[in-house]
Amino acid sequence: MSILVVGSVALDSIRTPFGEVEDILGGSATYFSVAASFFGDVRLVAVVGEDFPAQHVDFLASRKVDLRGLKRVPGKTFRWKGHYDYDLNEAHTLETQLNVFQDFDPDIPEEYRDSEFVFLANIDPGLQLRVLEQVRSPRLVICDTMNLWIETRRPQLLETISRVDYLLLNDSEARQLAEEPNLIGAGRKLLGMGPQRVIIKKGEHGVIMLGKDVFFSLPAYPLETVFDPTGAGDTFGGGLLGSLSRYPEMSEDDIRRSIVYGSVIASFNVESFSCDRLRDLTTGEIEERYREFTAITCF
Amino acid sequence: MSILVVGSVALDSIRTPFGEVEDILGGSATYFSVAASFFGDVRLVAVVGEDFPAQHVDFLASRKVDLRGLKRVPGKTFRWKGHYDYDLNEAHTLETQLNVFQDFDPDIPEEYRDSEFVFLANIDPGLQLRVLEQVRSPRLVICDTMNLWIETRRPQLLETISRVDYLLLNDSEARQLAEEPNLIGAGRKLLGMGPQRVIIKKGEHGVIMLGKDVFFSLPAYPLETVFDPTGAGDTFGGGLLGSLSRYPEMSEDDIRRSIVYGSVIASFNVESFSCDRLRDLTTGEIEERYREFTAITCF
Repeated sequence: MSILVVGSVALDSIRTPFGEVEDILGGSATYFSVAASFFGDVRLVAVVGEDFPAQHVDFLASRKVDLRGLKRVPGKTFRWKGHYDYDLNEAHTLETQLNVFQDFDPDIPEEYRDSEFVFLANIDPGLQLRVLEQVRSPRLVICDTMNLWIETRRPQLLETISRVDYLLLNDSEARQLAEEPNLIGAGRKLLGMGPQRVIIKKGEHGVIMLGKDVFFSLPAYPLETVFDPTGAGDTFGGGLLGSLSRYPEMSEDDIRRSIVYGSVIASFNVESFSCDRLRDLTTGEIEERYREFTAITCF
Repeated sequence: MSILVVGSVALDSIRTPFGEVEDILGGSATYFSVAASFFGDVRLVAVVGEDFPAQHVDFLASRKVDLRGLKRVPGKTFRWKGHYDYDLNEAHTLETQLNVFQDFDPDIPEEYRDSEFVFLANIDPGLQLRVLEQVRSPRLVICDTMNLWIETRRPQLLETISRVDYLLLNDSEARQLAEEPNLIGAGRKLLGMGPQRVIIKKGEHGVIMLGKDVFFSLPAYPLETVFDPTGAGDTFGGGLLGSLSRYPEMSEDDIRRSIVYGSVIASFNVESFSCDRLRDLTTGEIEERYREFTAITCF
């Protein structure tokens, strides 16, 4: 099953209470791709500059990510610099250099336009709409977003949301977009904007999923050390959509199982900088942690 | 099975975004007793003043709460005045009048000293120790606490904790007592202080339970409106210990089921001021919400 992701590939500089790194592999589409590659065939659309290290391209290729949609253009790669204090739920941005991402206009290669599963990573909702115009008849589209677009591109964002199947966002974004402090109430309001499902990421508190007449709540995997939370949401999305792509029916049970797989991959990802923990992650480890999720939640 | 609770019986004045009330029935031992009374026989030890309305005594008696340990003494009843803003996780105290509670010295009636289950509600840990000296051989003791005692009575609190079976507290208290920002790490440190189990209440995010080699996480019941969170923790404790008192073995499954029952009762309690929602609550409603907890968490 073919999974298309459109988003950023970046070089991040990050400081957490546990360490500091410069220009490491990052970006929403990167994290999503690596996570989803454990479950299905991923096609990536993004842009990098001339300075983007070949070793990162090699790594993505080693994960069997289809890179025909990864454009290399003159200029510097998108860079994000931030830090986390002891409250690892909150990222503090120090600097954002859009660089080549400034003029990113997602041109979906012809051979990607039949993709069955589409992930619109966190980019300008106008660009997300442009992607939707180019794909032919996807079975499932998930879109992510962020506070910047809620504040500056609300009409375009509402248009995008009305045209996707699942909306994925974090708790503060859900409250902000719905203009409703109660998270359950916010989720219901967002459902009213069009998507079949609203999935709200709550960081260390897990995730909730709302649909018409259904509700699911999954706690987070109990980690004593969150080394670097960067990419948690995107690896969750990759695990979720990757797993979903394996189920022909996408039943309620399949959706819930896929939310657990998303949480499993995200829980591994935050154990190291970049997606380093995913480099040598095995399917055995994934299944083992899935079973642990069962053990810690069953009653 | 006999359940002993020692704590406060109070008159609360509360303002929430949904309304404002004055001198309503409150107090940790009140909330606990009413909640536990759905599952077992409760014995109450507390003190009130001459102004304590007879109707409240009648209500507790109607719940079959044994009131031989409720002392009425000259003076005014303990009063708490507070408000909640839209973040209903945080209570803002406006005024605390200890009144007759100032000189509360829990004298456990002889006929209560054989109690099998003991709940040390949130009172001075020195008084909690005094209770432990008087009960003979309880099967299970749970103690609750709060930031005030963590800050002002740490040695006595540590002594109490080392002598109880389960420690119950909220997330910020757990971090403060353990001096550890990561909640899972904090829970492990608290386990090291002596109790078999540490149960951490996270408000709208549910509850986690840690034991030696076991971990359980339960999300909160999804409420669109939390009318008044006062008493949520104590009704949780009442449902938990009440339910546990029904299981002779107190197996891991029994403990988990009891945590769900605690969450069920607490979720009803926050739907109204005081314990008003519990006045006409039926066992059918409790069982129905228990099944809903299963439906929203299973995968």
